[in-house]
Amino acid sequence: MKFLVLNGVNLNLTGKREPGVYGAETLEEINGELAAFVRARGHEADFKQSNIEGELCTFIQQAEGKYDGIVLNAGAYTHYSVALRDAIAAVSVPVVEVHMSNVQAREEFRKNSVLTGVCRGEILGFGKNSYILALESFLL
Amino acid sequence: MKFLVLNGVNLNLTGKREPGVYGAETLEEINGELAAFVRARGHEADFKQSNIEGELCTFIQQAEGKYDGIVLNAGAYTHYSVALRDAIAAVSVPVVEVHMSNVQAREEFRKNSVLTGVCRGEILGFGKNSYILALESFLL
Amino acid sequence: MKFLVLNGVNLNLTGKREPGVYGAETLEEINGELAAFVRARGHEADFKQSNIEGELCTFIQQAEGKYDGIVLNAGAYTHYSVALRDAIAAVSVPVVEVHMSNVQAREEFRKNSVLTGVCRGEILGFGKNSYILALESFLL
Amino acid sequence: MKFLVLNGVNLNLTGKREPGVYGAETLEEINGELAAFVRARGHEADFKQSNIEGELCTFIQQAEGKYDGIVLNAGAYTHYSVALRDAIAAVSVPVVEVHMSNVQAREEFRKNSVLTGVCRGEILGFGKNSYILALESFLL
Amino acid sequence: MKFLVLNGVNLNLTGKREPGVYGAETLEEINGELAAFVRARGHEADFKQSNIEGELCTFIQQAEGKYDGIVLNAGAYTHYSVALRDAIAAVSVPVVEVHMSNVQAREEFRKNSVLTGVCRGEILGFGKNSYILALESFLL
Amino acid sequence: MKFLVLNGVNLNLTGKREPGVYGAETLEEINGELAAFVRARGHEADFKQSNIEGELCTFIQQAEGKYDGIVLNAGAYTHYSVALRDAIAAVSVPVVEVHMSNVQAREEFRKNSVLTGVCRGEILGFGKNSYILALESFLL
Amino acid sequence: MKFLVLNGVNLNLTGKREPGVYGAETLEEINGELAAFVRARGHEADFKQSNIEGELCTFIQQAEGKYDGIVLNAGAYTHYSVALRDAIAAVSVPVVEVHMSNVQAREEFRKNSVLTGVCRGEILGFGKNSYILALESFLL
Amino acid sequence: MKFLVLNGVNLNLTGKREPGVYGAETLEEINGELAAFVRARGHEADFKQSNIEGELCTFIQQAEGKYDGIVLNAGAYTHYSVALRDAIAAVSVPVVEVHMSNVQAREEFRKNSVLTGVCRGEILGFGKNSYILALESFLL
Amino acid sequence: MKFLVLNGVNLNLTGKREPGVYGAETLEEINGELAAFVRARGHEADFKQSNIEGELCTFIQQAEGKYDGIVLNAGAYTHYSVALRDAIAAVSVPVVEVHMSNVQAREEFRKNSVLTGVCRGEILGFGKNSYILALESFLL
Amino acid sequence: MKFLVLNGVNLNLTGKREPGVYGAETLEEINGELAAFVRARGHEADFKQSNIEGELCTFIQQAEGKYDGIVLNAGAYTHYSVALRDAIAAVSVPVVEVHMSNVQAREEFRKNSVLTGVCRGEILGFGKNSYILALESFLL
Amino acid sequence: MKFLVLNGVNLNLTGKREPGVYGAETLEEINGELAAFVRARGHEADFKQSNIEGELCTFIQQAEGKYDGIVLNAGAYTHYSVALRDAIAAVSVPVVEVHMSNVQAREEFRKNSVLTGVCRGEILGFGKNSYILALESFLL
Amino acid sequence: MKFLVLNGVNLNLTGKREPGVYGAETLEEINGELAAFVRARGHEADFKQSNIEGELCTFIQQAEGKYDGIVLNAGAYTHYSVALRDAIAAVSVPVVEVHMSNVQAREEFRKNSVLTGVCRGEILGFGKNSYILALESFLL
Repeated sequence: MKFLVLNGVNLNLTGKREPGVYGAETLEEINGELAAFVRARGHEADFKQSNIEGELCTFIQQAEGKYDGIVLNAGAYTHYSVALRDAIAAVSVPVVEVHMSNVQAREEFRKNSVLTGVCRGEILGFGKNSYILALESFLL
Repeated sequence: MKFLVLNGVNLNLTGKREPGVYGAETLEEINGELAAFVRARGHEADFKQSNIEGELCTFIQQAEGKYDGIVLNAGAYTHYSVALRDAIAAVSVPVVEVHMSNVQAREEFRKNSVLTGVCRGEILGFGKNSYILALESFLL
Repeated sequence: MKFLVLNGVNLNLTGKREPGVYGAETLEEINGELAAFVRARGHEADFKQSNIEGELCTFIQQAEGKYDGIVLNAGAYTHYSVALRDAIAAVSVPVVEVHMSNVQAREEFRKNSVLTGVCRGEILGFGKNSYILALESFLL
Repeated sequence: MKFLVLNGVNLNLTGKREPGVYGAETLEEINGELAAFVRARGHEADFKQSNIEGELCTFIQQAEGKYDGIVLNAGAYTHYSVALRDAIAAVSVPVVEVHMSNVQAREEFRKNSVLTGVCRGEILGFGKNSYILALESFLL
Repeated sequence: MKFLVLNGVNLNLTGKREPGVYGAETLEEINGELAAFVRARGHEADFKQSNIEGELCTFIQQAEGKYDGIVLNAGAYTHYSVALRDAIAAVSVPVVEVHMSNVQAREEFRKNSVLTGVCRGEILGFGKNSYILALESFLL
Repeated sequence: MKFLVLNGVNLNLTGKREPGVYGAETLEEINGELAAFVRARGHEADFKQSNIEGELCTFIQQAEGKYDGIVLNAGAYTHYSVALRDAIAAVSVPVVEVHMSNVQAREEFRKNSVLTGVCRGEILGFGKNSYILALESFLL
Repeated sequence: MKFLVLNGVNLNLTGKREPGVYGAETLEEINGELAAFVRARGHEADFKQSNIEGELCTFIQQAEGKYDGIVLNAGAYTHYSVALRDAIAAVSVPVVEVHMSNVQAREEFRKNSVLTGVCRGEILGFGKNSYILALESFLL
Repeated sequence: MKFLVLNGVNLNLTGKREPGVYGAETLEEINGELAAFVRARGHEADFKQSNIEGELCTFIQQAEGKYDGIVLNAGAYTHYSVALRDAIAAVSVPVVEVHMSNVQAREEFRKNSVLTGVCRGEILGFGKNSYILALESFLL
Repeated sequence: MKFLVLNGVNLNLTGKREPGVYGAETLEEINGELAAFVRARGHEADFKQSNIEGELCTFIQQAEGKYDGIVLNAGAYTHYSVALRDAIAAVSVPVVEVHMSNVQAREEFRKNSVLTGVCRGEILGFGKNSYILALESFLL
Repeated sequence: MKFLVLNGVNLNLTGKREPGVYGAETLEEINGELAAFVRARGHEADFKQSNIEGELCTFIQQAEGKYDGIVLNAGAYTHYSVALRDAIAAVSVPVVEVHMSNVQAREEFRKNSVLTGVCRGEILGFGKNSYILALESFLL
Repeated sequence: MKFLVLNGVNLNLTGKREPGVYGAETLEEINGELAAFVRARGHEADFKQSNIEGELCTFIQQAEGKYDGIVLNAGAYTHYSVALRDAIAAVSVPVVEVHMSNVQAREEFRKNSVLTGVCRGEILGFGKNSYILALESFLL
Repeated sequence: MKFLVLNGVNLNLTGKREPGVYGAETLEEINGELAAFVRARGHEADFKQSNIEGELCTFIQQAEGKYDGIVLNAGAYTHYSVALRDAIAAVSVPVVEVHMSNVQAREEFRKNSVLTGVCRGEILGFGKNSYILALESFLL
């Protein structure tokens, strides 16, 4: 199987901002660990990131027929991007939504996700392990 | 007269996703029919699409002085892009908002358009004919 | 094909009230032009108007089996008449909702239509041409 | 005892629209069965229907002193007719509100009744038997 | 000057329902006193009442050019009839909204009037004197 | 047929609290009358009551395959127990919701029922006769 | 009879601010006319004004036993002063609320009055005549 | 390590109700698989279920000092049990909230969880694998 | 006089959880002090606690005729248990609601009590002294 | 210790208005009893009242360093005076909020206090004993 | 030019309360610096403060014709004083609203200003420099 | 010091659209004046603009370590871009939010800024001088 791990806006700063919330590892380091995890199971993964909502939509559109699953951390777009929601609903690749922090324990406006309803599932609160568990969900 | 038919996010998937909702023709095929329709009336039309909210704003800004009318299907941005609203309000080219599906018969969050108030009019629910009727509205 | 153009409350004043919003032509003059438009295409149209919500429901009920399409401008009832909504949903004749003005650019309470969700489509903002485009939508 | 069975807007279509929701019997057939049911118990019933909100108010006003109970299915007016509410509150004849369908299992806007608070009781969800049970409530 | 005193739904019951709220005089008796009051000042008044929203709209439409002022007690329609609001806004005859009871001291849903904003003024809480004061307002 | 009459929280106090609202008969006396009513029709009924939300859920779960219908007065749990709603939805036994008082004529927070949408129907406002009518609804 | 005409915050500016809304006469001039009006009828009136919410409450408290009626224009305090509401409710002198402008035709936040529910009545929209009509209401 | 897998109201029906939503395996069968999964990793798990909100609180209270982690599917209590929220916040054992179905893709009232904010994380949408992933989260 | 001190869900953890909020004394120690306080005044008190909403209702029901006053800290049920509210309203024993912490200074959802309206009074914010003051309120 | 008992708007009318709600004793009589109560315990109290929001703020500001505790009944300002809230938060003297009536059992708008969150505690519903208990709270 | 620097409720405590939020300088010291700043530019400034809403209105009224600009920090009145809003709108002197703290980063109820819409502009978050920048805005 | 002046969506049209609102100078001309202002003080400034939300986030991310302050006019993104909010919160460079117009005096939806809470301060309403004052705020 082949997976796409797709990170959204500001997640390129992981490890650089608010390490208390997001941990001290950079996105590159985390992606490296995810790649190793997937490879160890005999599968493959690609990694993309963009700060631009429309580009994230394009990445999801282009995943059709190329990936068996998408692990998506949309960052702040989680809370208002109906565009991303429509892109997810338009492709047949299953998407698992992840968040490193427990977004329900933060500001009021972070409690709402417009994406979850069209994803296969959601995993939040486990730091970088949220990604690991999402990948695991495809392999069970 | 010269028109711009501008499609927003995920509309490049038309004919590929949810054919029950959007019909089986691709955006290219629809644009071809629209071009023929306009040409038959002795006018011209250009066709643009982007998944990126800011790019759609730029296309609208650049329409000033170049087009006599814009037919806009903003896709999901319809529901929250105050940026697009401001772009429409900033140009003197009249904009007609269209939707292929009857967005009022779908999810609650699709019932609100932040764009209509600054457009000349809105046409929704007629599939690809929504575009035809919008173009027609400039020719009556 | 045979159409019913049905106008609701206060639309008998068209051309007499707020000409800046609704134009200077009376409803009778507009209906005359619509009749000519339809006839020129080889079709027929009937024209009815009532200020009474329940009478409008009755007109829609009686359209069953007699008309191929209804063009409905319900006036103020648009915003709260669940009775009209139910009448529209109860008949198999397709209904196209029209508004002469851009109701989304006016008072807050005019932004909501309880009818659109059970209509085939909606056309708003083109003055008397809203009716023309609605009739056209049946002929495309 | 003498009862008035009063049906509101679009209920004249019963048996003709959405038989899955309202059953296949027409309002006339149902009224016939209700008349038989009441007569078998040694009582009388009159039957009225109107699509017009104000006429329904008038029927309720005129029931004063003539009927021992009203069975009222106001149709869509249930959800917004404060006029009907006031008419019910103004007469001393007890009114039982009925609905054939389970309105709480349908659209959000059908969940609210402005009438129930001034009625003796409410019965909903039993198809034509909602009327039977309402009549029964006066005979217990 | 010539005035129209227009009463809406259920106001034909005045003096018959809830005398604690509306007084013991019938609408006919009150109208008689109003006629005397106006005549004594050297003016004229006509009196109309209807339970039907659309008929009330028609009465207001027909007042154009015939009356110098309308005193309107719309009853329950006060709270939701955008149709009446539009009729008032469409005529040039000034309308004064009246209520016999203090509607702000009653149920929550009676606190809102959709009419006041397009009337010249509003007078409420003085029983039948609300009508007298409204007529007086045209004579000052 | 065999029925379960299930009463929820505080209904064991019936006849002891607020007799003006709930009547002077105790729950035991009412249940006795209901048993007689059902027996006279050639059917059977069991009677259960609990103050504990979870126990009420268990009673509903255990009704599967044992009863042909449940008459449920959930008391205050009516307004917030999604747990009860899920229990009702999970069994195939039809449930009729009843209330002795007209809950729509009481406090604002009593106007909402989270249960009705998954019940067959609802009967409210007839005192102990609400139960009789609910049982009757299964026998018609 | 003896009346208190009590004006609240910023009403000392009447005739000086927004003459289009409030007219060109100063509060002193208006009060003079009101005094003349009352005197001509054989009654008396006192006139007070304060910008301070608590002082207005004190004036109302002190009116007990001294005045037969209060005409109150509370200005902006109308919309939020529960303190004034309590003062009005605490005295037995009847209070008539007045507004010179049609506050329902202005900003959204001006549509709500926390005072009306405890006043005898409300008169709004007639300029300085709102005061005259309020005084008249005590004399009818 | 030792874990508590705690299931709430109506989850004892798993495999018996709505198999399309919850799968065809019973809770006992799922618990058996979870036990095997944990044992294979060299750990232990206990399994409890209750329909009673207060009992679930007690189970969480008693977990203090006995378990290294709790996997909690609270069922319908998820949406309103502040009592459970307080119990979770009161113990130092980390709790992972799970749901078998994608609750964000169901009824509006199921979109809110009052528990997540005090849990370590949340996993939803993976059927019985939601439990597996939650246990896995403690072992990573 | 004889009092019932009734503690609700999670209050059995007092002194064990969040000592910064609730103090370091256990519920048993606090109850001991309350017993001593009451005894010193020549009165008696019983002490009960339950995590189960329905059991708390039963305790309140059973207090009828046995106690002269109830001091109730319902814990989290304060915010949503209409069942408890109904139980309090159903007994003639006066109930004083207490909270150890200042619930108005904590999370938004803790600001609402559905119980206070049917209690004699409420005392909050004084730690264990909230109970002392509540008992004192019966003795003044 | 030295206390300030501070009463807000309209509380100077205590014993004069609505004795059913506030008792028949005047504020002076109540203050006399409070002074006696405090003196009997070997402490002192000062008493102030104002109808003016800003003066109440000033009194609280001036209490800094002069009093060991403030007992505050802000009257209607309780519900909207953020100014008072800020004054309370700005001084280090602890403030206990009191109400004589059970404000939660009255009008909807009286259920909200903007002050409690910055007070030490709140006591309501015990008539003049609310003050006694508040003073007692400082002496325990 | 001549300016009025007007401070509202509790701002006389500046430098005495919450120095972390408002800095350690007193209002007098800040005013001294502002006076020096203005004088250095060749202009004049007066300084006023009041805790009383109505007095602040009076100060603004009296500024007409005497000052070229007002720098206003209304403190807590910012969030609800429509009276102040009306006073600002009634004078022709331009008003600049200032806040020392970033009120948008504090409690929810501090996020709304009823004043800004009628001020020339707003400056917030710069401590005492908010005043300097507001004065500067008149001098640019 | 070195500053970044960052303009968002549609601000490239400044001087071209709605000169009544935004003035007649183009963004380039304004930037030129800002550059001159900063240079005159011995500092430097860079100027960027983008219509794309994600690009604006990237510009803010890249400002880390390169600038001493950012002056940000996000245009329409001000009202909904949680992405921009997160970018601002993620960098240590202080950001001052500016608006040329008084956004609080315009449409309802422009009253909310999701950015201010994480900015150092906000300046609005002074046309191009809003930028000058923001730069000045860093230099005081």
